[in-house]
Amino acid sequence: MNSQRTDCSPVTPTTRLEAFSDGVFAIAITLLVLEIKAPHPEPGAAYSLWAALADDWPAYIGYVVSFVTIGIYWVNHHYLLHLFRGTNHGLNLLNLLLLMCLSFLPFSTAVLGENLRQPGQERAAVAFYVLSFLAPAMAWFAMWRYAVAGGRLIDRNLEPAFIRKLTLRYGISSVVYPFALAADYWDYRAGLAIFTVITGMYLWPSPPPQYRNGAGEQVVDA
Amino acid sequence: MNSQRTDCSPVTPTTRLEAFSDGVFAIAITLLVLEIKAPHPEPGAAYSLWAALADDWPAYIGYVVSFVTIGIYWVNHHYLLHLFRGTNHGLNLLNLLLLMCLSFLPFSTAVLGENLRQPGQERAAVAFYVLSFLAPAMAWFAMWRYAVAGGRLIDRNLEPAFIRKLTLRYGISSVVYPFALAADYWDYRAGLAIFTVITGMYLWPSPPPQYRNGAGEQVVDA
Amino acid sequence: MNSQRTDCSPVTPTTRLEAFSDGVFAIAITLLVLEIKAPHPEPGAAYSLWAALADDWPAYIGYVVSFVTIGIYWVNHHYLLHLFRGTNHGLNLLNLLLLMCLSFLPFSTAVLGENLRQPGQERAAVAFYVLSFLAPAMAWFAMWRYAVAGGRLIDRNLEPAFIRKLTLRYGISSVVYPFALAADYWDYRAGLAIFTVITGMYLWPSPPPQYRNGAGEQVVDA
Amino acid sequence: MNSQRTDCSPVTPTTRLEAFSDGVFAIAITLLVLEIKAPHPEPGAAYSLWAALADDWPAYIGYVVSFVTIGIYWVNHHYLLHLFRGTNHGLNLLNLLLLMCLSFLPFSTAVLGENLRQPGQERAAVAFYVLSFLAPAMAWFAMWRYAVAGGRLIDRNLEPAFIRKLTLRYGISSVVYPFALAADYWDYRAGLAIFTVITGMYLWPSPPPQYRNGAGEQVVDA
Repeated sequence: MNSQRTDCSPVTPTTRLEAFSDGVFAIAITLLVLEIKAPHPEPGAAYSLWAALADDWPAYIGYVVSFVTIGIYWVNHHYLLHLFRGTNHGLNLLNLLLLMCLSFLPFSTAVLGENLRQPGQERAAVAFYVLSFLAPAMAWFAMWRYAVAGGRLIDRNLEPAFIRKLTLRYGISSVVYPFALAADYWDYRAGLAIFTVITGMYLWPSPPPQYRNGAGEQVVDA
Repeated sequence: MNSQRTDCSPVTPTTRLEAFSDGVFAIAITLLVLEIKAPHPEPGAAYSLWAALADDWPAYIGYVVSFVTIGIYWVNHHYLLHLFRGTNHGLNLLNLLLLMCLSFLPFSTAVLGENLRQPGQERAAVAFYVLSFLAPAMAWFAMWRYAVAGGRLIDRNLEPAFIRKLTLRYGISSVVYPFALAADYWDYRAGLAIFTVITGMYLWPSPPPQYRNGAGEQVVDA
Repeated sequence: MNSQRTDCSPVTPTTRLEAFSDGVFAIAITLLVLEIKAPHPEPGAAYSLWAALADDWPAYIGYVVSFVTIGIYWVNHHYLLHLFRGTNHGLNLLNLLLLMCLSFLPFSTAVLGENLRQPGQERAAVAFYVLSFLAPAMAWFAMWRYAVAGGRLIDRNLEPAFIRKLTLRYGISSVVYPFALAADYWDYRAGLAIFTVITGMYLWPSPPPQYRNGAGEQVVDA
Repeated sequence: MNSQRTDCSPVTPTTRLEAFSDGVFAIAITLLVLEIKAPHPEPGAAYSLWAALADDWPAYIGYVVSFVTIGIYWVNHHYLLHLFRGTNHGLNLLNLLLLMCLSFLPFSTAVLGENLRQPGQERAAVAFYVLSFLAPAMAWFAMWRYAVAGGRLIDRNLEPAFIRKLTLRYGISSVVYPFALAADYWDYRAGLAIFTVITGMYLWPSPPPQYRNGAGEQVVDA
């Protein structure tokens, strides 16, 4: 096979890769809540629980946006791997890179939650948050390009036009996140709004795979 | 199929959805314990471990009630999905909303644990706790209505009377949780007690599915 | 079936129960590490990392003992469920109780780690730790008795002598943990040592199931 | 079977062992992020988010190195277990020891992150970090030797030369980590660099299993 000429590692089914990735997705998405700290009164200060909870609004925004984004990655990850004939050592490492970037998001979400209401730090908080989402978007695009290049891992029965459509879909976020950064430099609310709209666009379902005339899904022998 | 006329996304088996949801359930339920902080002596203060542990009673109440509630959601989630022919993109998103609400519960449980013994904040602590359970109850009801409406995803062999019974069962908590809120406004102990009784009622097992005469479970082709 | 005469809920396979329990076991065992806090210098105080790490010895003892104990529960949980014909609603709830007790252990381990070196609090720290392990031992025994009583869920092909042997094995820890408590009242080191020995005894593998002459494992129809 | 003469416990398939281990791997790898603390301003101090984030560089190094290392352990764990005919009680306990060492890594990573920029504590921080990776390396080697010794669990169709090659591969890290410790004693940057290079070497894929002429994989009867 061509893929074994460019890489020395064999192509194997994606089952184990999916199971491990699912575990990391489920854990990272659930850890987000740990970064919201329960308010409690400081000694000697006036305290109202409702006021303290309301004061934590940036943490709630971060929780919702990060939760939805990781959820979207989860849905798309299954979709993506089913477009491949299998995985190899190189893709396993790129996938580990993707998981490393996604597992980092609870931290950047906490940074947003703690700093969005700090006078003078709002733009830095949003910029760090947007950059932390740019990282997995680029890792994702690297996985896609690695699998497509030279037909290394991509299902060879897929329509070339369909593959080009996905290249556009997966590449676009790396191009438009910088717009959110530019807007953030001007006003952090604009930056956060643009970022949220971009994320929300991925809620739109992925297109069904299109195969060449008469061909079905191509699978690797287990 | 009718479901494909109202939604453009296809109906697929619920296997993956269940596995991912199970992961989030298991993690959220286990994270609850992290919100109970181990007592340790402050410098210069008299300290007794037993007294400090006893002082943490609201955290234990919150731990038990939240653990049982998430456990009940887990049991019912499997039951629910087996009443559907399959899932689609819309249900996947509603399920993500449900998981987002359930994953939030360790935070509201921590808020209860930290604030139930703060003089003057007890009612707010209970109200926030009850509201945090109202959210997943409403997401659950939305999933149910979405699946039932127009026979979109519900198993079409189920008895209409059985479906109406479940609509009542799933809708009722959204109606009675506000009673716990009203009682809480009067006395936080009453609010917490009513809330616990409502939750405990769901320990009662779900009724076995009732199919039309001679019909069995309807499944979607994988 | 007899089991359906004493309970109204049907007997179903244990697959889902095992998967969910495995998730909770794996998470609870891994969360233990979060309760060991990384030392860092306080402003103005002399600081040596090695000394600070050595100072944390109770946390390491708690980590090892709790990790091994939860690991033993995990191994035995699979063994136990394979002795049953299946599960029902009652066993599901008792299993949820067991998981609630086991998920609580990271907290009691943290209490031990933070208080074992507090002068005057050592005995309380050990007593709370031992009591927190008595709880899952009793929940386990309740599961066993519930399944065995009236042949409700137990595999009816098992030798009665084998069942009696397990009743002894599972009941004994509830009887001997109080000895660790008594020893702790005298000297906390003795209490902790006896507790560790009891736990270590369960490292001994469970006896292979013994079936009646000619009979094999009895399974419920899925 | 020979394995049943040296141990009293039977040889069983590794499926359950792998599933539980996968769960622990996925959780430990995802918990790493919790040890990076989001910066927030101290009252009365000048504060810049970018400066505070940059100040946390040791935590990011620790996150990446530990994440990659645990990921490599995960990949190799599957590979390893597929070289065995099955597992037994002894291997289950050694595997639990391995998981206990790996689950400890978020703590040692936090120690590195908090202490690498403490003047005078850098060498101790790196030494503790390297030692914490020596522990799972030795547990791994113990698993390997236990399975190979007397043909206890190893697939007997594997080439002896292949087995010797793996013994070398798995033993070498226990031998070279002390070099990192020695270098650290001289300069902590050298220690950390050598450690990272050793870890990176394991990114190289494992050699494909080599079987005796004409023989395939040997599996235990389930």
